[in-house]
Amino acid sequence: MADLSHLHLNPESDVPLYKQLAESIVNTIARGDLRPADRLPATRELAGQLGLNRTTVSAAYALLEETGFIEGHVGRGSFVAKREKTPAPSATDWDAILPPLEAPLPPVHKIEISFANSRPAAEEFPLAEFRRLSKQVIDSPEATQILQLGSPHGYPPLRRYLLEQALAKGVARPGDDLIVTNGCQQAFDLLAHLFASGGQSAVLEDPVYHGLVRVFSRAGAHIVPVPVDGNGLDVDALETAMERHRPRLIVVTPSFQNPTGATLSFDRRKRLVEIARRSGAVLVENDIYSELRYRGKPLPPLKELDETGNTILLRSYSKVAFPGLRVGWIIAPRAVVARLAEAKQTSDLHSDQLAQAILLRFAESGELALHLERTRRAGAERLQAVLRGCAQYLPPGTRFTRPEGGMSLWIELPAPLTAEGLLARAEERGVSFLAGRHFSADHRHIRGLRISFGALAPARILRGLQMIGEAVEAELAASRAPERFEAIAALV
Amino acid sequence: MADLSHLHLNPESDVPLYKQLAESIVNTIARGDLRPADRLPATRELAGQLGLNRTTVSAAYALLEETGFIEGHVGRGSFVAKREKTPAPSATDWDAILPPLEAPLPPVHKIEISFANSRPAAEEFPLAEFRRLSKQVIDSPEATQILQLGSPHGYPPLRRYLLEQALAKGVARPGDDLIVTNGCQQAFDLLAHLFASGGQSAVLEDPVYHGLVRVFSRAGAHIVPVPVDGNGLDVDALETAMERHRPRLIVVTPSFQNPTGATLSFDRRKRLVEIARRSGAVLVENDIYSELRYRGKPLPPLKELDETGNTILLRSYSKVAFPGLRVGWIIAPRAVVARLAEAKQTSDLHSDQLAQAILLRFAESGELALHLERTRRAGAERLQAVLRGCAQYLPPGTRFTRPEGGMSLWIELPAPLTAEGLLARAEERGVSFLAGRHFSADHRHIRGLRISFGALAPARILRGLQMIGEAVEAELAASRAPERFEAIAALV
Repeated sequence: MADLSHLHLNPESDVPLYKQLAESIVNTIARGDLRPADRLPATRELAGQLGLNRTTVSAAYALLEETGFIEGHVGRGSFVAKREKTPAPSATDWDAILPPLEAPLPPVHKIEISFANSRPAAEEFPLAEFRRLSKQVIDSPEATQILQLGSPHGYPPLRRYLLEQALAKGVARPGDDLIVTNGCQQAFDLLAHLFASGGQSAVLEDPVYHGLVRVFSRAGAHIVPVPVDGNGLDVDALETAMERHRPRLIVVTPSFQNPTGATLSFDRRKRLVEIARRSGAVLVENDIYSELRYRGKPLPPLKELDETGNTILLRSYSKVAFPGLRVGWIIAPRAVVARLAEAKQTSDLHSDQLAQAILLRFAESGELALHLERTRRAGAERLQAVLRGCAQYLPPGTRFTRPEGGMSLWIELPAPLTAEGLLARAEERGVSFLAGRHFSADHRHIRGLRISFGALAPARILRGLQMIGEAVEAELAASRAPERFEAIAALV
Repeated sequence: MADLSHLHLNPESDVPLYKQLAESIVNTIARGDLRPADRLPATRELAGQLGLNRTTVSAAYALLEETGFIEGHVGRGSFVAKREKTPAPSATDWDAILPPLEAPLPPVHKIEISFANSRPAAEEFPLAEFRRLSKQVIDSPEATQILQLGSPHGYPPLRRYLLEQALAKGVARPGDDLIVTNGCQQAFDLLAHLFASGGQSAVLEDPVYHGLVRVFSRAGAHIVPVPVDGNGLDVDALETAMERHRPRLIVVTPSFQNPTGATLSFDRRKRLVEIARRSGAVLVENDIYSELRYRGKPLPPLKELDETGNTILLRSYSKVAFPGLRVGWIIAPRAVVARLAEAKQTSDLHSDQLAQAILLRFAESGELALHLERTRRAGAERLQAVLRGCAQYLPPGTRFTRPEGGMSLWIELPAPLTAEGLLARAEERGVSFLAGRHFSADHRHIRGLRISFGALAPARILRGLQMIGEAVEAELAASRAPERFEAIAALV
C-alpha cells in the first residue's frame, strides 16, 4: 500500500485542507511516486498519519474520484486510476525549486450559492451610466493625456478632486497629500514597504482579511494580532500589545470589518486614536466599507478624530463602484505620500489612467452618489435577509455578528464542529463560504466562518443559510454518533 | 557665515546633484538652521567642502536665486532671502523618521527640448481608433465581466489571446502559461519577489534602466552588474560573473536596450542561452522594445532560442501603444506563473480589466499592427535624425551608440567632461537629458548620458543635439581655461 504519511499540508493556506490533500495526491501521482493501481491508505489511517479529520480525507478521496484520479472499490479501498497520459516532463523541476504553491484545484461540487466572495452584485452595476460617462471621457480632449505616461501620484485631476473632497469634509488636513493606488491591496503593499520592511511590528486585527496578513508577512513585518469583537478591535488588548511589542503600525478597519462586519464604537475610536498618539505608532485606517452603511448612524473616521494629523487613511472605489477598475487611494501627511510615491514608482510606475478618469467622471457627475443610494437600499434588504436567515436556520449554540453595513457577517459554530468539516458537507449540498482559518492573524478560528452577502439576492441568502443550517445540524448529529466501522482490506 | 559642510547629497539619486544641493539648502532654511540674511559660503569653498564641481554649486545657487530662496549681491556673495512665511510645523517630523526622499524640485529652467523621457509621441497616438474600439468594448456584453472582480492572471480573453499568439509564433511552449501585469515594471517586481527576495544574486546589465536596479534592490537581491557594449551584454564578462556569483537570475533587454539602444547579436544570444542552461540560472528577457525596429533584420527572442523552455519573457503594450494603460505580461513555465499569480494577488489583486479589454480589441482588430507600422516609419525618421545630429554636432572625442530601433541612444563625453556638469549647462540652454549615473548598476557612468528620442520630431531632435553639441563645446573650452578668480568677501 502507498505511503502518504510524508505529505505536508499548509493550514495557513486559503485552500481548504481537503483540496490541498487531493492536490498533493495528484502531485504524487504526477511525479510517479504513486502509480496506476496502487492502493491508497484507508481514510482513518491517513487521517491519523497526517493529523486530519477523517471527514477531510474522505472529502479529498471523493474529489479525486470525481476528477478521475482514483477509483474506489467497495470493500477493497481506493486505487490510483489508470490515466491515458502522464504529465509532460519539464526541463526544470520548478516545484522543487520554488516555494510551495497555494493554488486550489477547481471546485468540482456544483456550488449553487456561494457566500465565499466579498464583492458587489454585478447585476446592480449602473451599466448605462458607466457606458455614457466612459464615452464622455474617451471623447474628451483629455484622452491624449490619459493615454500618455502618468504620475506615480495618480491621474492629476482625480488626485486633486479626491483631496479637495477630503479637505472639504475635514477628513484630510492642510498638511496632507494623496496618492492613487490599485485598490486598497496595493495601498497596503506600499505601506508595508515603507513602514514595516525592516521587520517592524504591525498590529493587525484577528480575524482579519487574509490579504493583509500576506502583504505584511511578505514585507517582513512582525505581525501583532489583536482580537476583534462585536464592537471592533479590543482596545484593552491593544494597550497590552502596545506595551509589549511597541508596534510601528496599527492597521484597523473601523467600519464593517472584513470578515466580522464589526464596527468600532465611538468610544473605542477615541481611545484608539489616543493610544496611537501616546505610543507614537502610526494608525492605518482601512476605510473601504464605511459608505456601505445600511442601518444606524455614521461614525467619524479615525482620521478625523486624530488631532495629530498622522493617521493614514485608505479608501477605494472597488467596493462602492466597480472592482474590475482598480482604483483606491491613500491620504496621509505629505512627507509620507512622497515616499509612497517612490515605492509606487518602483512597484508599477503608476495606476491605469483610463479607469481613474472614468471614476472621476462618475464621482463628479453625481452618478456615484446615486449608485451608492441604490446600493445602500439593496444592501439593507440583504442585511435583513442575512440576519433573519441566521436567526431562523442556525441551530442553538451557533453565534453570529450583527453588522450594520458592509458585505460580511461572521458565524461561530458550536463545539466540536469545525468550519473546515462543515465546508466539505456544505459544498456537497451546494453552498459555500470561507472557513475561519483564512482570516487568521494568530488564533486559528477553527469554528469561525465568513458569510459574504454583498452579491446575493435576499431569497438566495435565506436559501443558502437554510442549507448551511442543515449542514450544521447534520454535522452536529454526526458528532454525537459513534464512529462508524470502516472495512479495511487485509494486507497481502 | 553659514556652515553647510554637513550637507549630504546622494550620488545614487535620480535628482541631479545641483538640484539636490539646492533642495538641501531649502530644507536647512526651512528648519531654521539658516536664517534670513545669513550669508552662504562662496561656491568654490562649498564645492571644496562637499567634494563637488564648482559648476554644480553655481547651478544650485542660480536655482535658489531664481526660486527666491537666496539673493546674490555682486562682490558680497549670496544671502538667505527674507521670506513671507515659514513652513507650517508638522505634528511628527516624518523626514526624521522615514528614509530620505529623492523627490526633485520642479525644474525652473525652461526646457525647450527634453531628451529625458523615454516614451512614445502623444501626438501619434491613434486616437480615433482608440475611441472607436473603446466604445465597442464599453458597449459589449462583456462590460459587466470587465467591471467585476477579476483574476490575478489577467482578463481571461486577453490572457488567452496573448498565449495563443505566443504559441503560434513559437515564442511560448506547450508547458508555458501567461500572467498579465501592470506594465513590465510590475513584472520585475513580481519576479524579484519570487526569485530574489532571499538575497539571491541577479545579473543586471550596466548601464541599465534605473527602475530595474530599484526593484531588485528593494526586494533584497544582490545585484551583479555585467557591462553592455554596442552588441549588448558582454557575454565574456557574464561568464566570469556566473562563476563568481552563481546568480539565480540573468535579466537582459536583448533588443534596443534602455539606455544604450544596443541589441544583442545573434551569436551572443546563443551563447547567453547556453550560459544560462549550463549554470541553471533563469533567464529573464525584457522584450518591450523589439517591435520598434526601424532598420536591419529582426533577431529571434531568447525565449525562442532556449530549448529548455525556462526563459521568462516579459512584454508590454506600454511602449508600442499607450503607456497610460498599464498592461504588460509574463510568459513562463506554468509552475512559475502560478507563483507569480500568488505574488500578484498579494501586490494588488489583479490588473485593471478595462484597459486589458481595450488593448485586446486593439490587437485583435489589426489596429495595433497598423499603428506599429506607422510608429516604425516615424521611428525610422527619428533614428536617422538622432544619428545624423550626433555625427554632425558632437565634437570629436564624443562617442555614441548606433541603435537600430527603440527609443534611446547613449553618448559618452570626452574627459574631463561629466554628464552632470554638462546637464547644468544644457538646461540653461533649454535642452535636457538624463545623466549616466541614473543608469548605474555599478560603474558610475559619469561621462555617459541617455538621449531619448522616441517622442520628438526629427527637426527638434536635430536642434536639441545642436544645443547639446554647443554645450559640450562650451564645457570643453571651460575645462581648458584657467580657473577664474572669484571675489570672496572678507570675514567680519
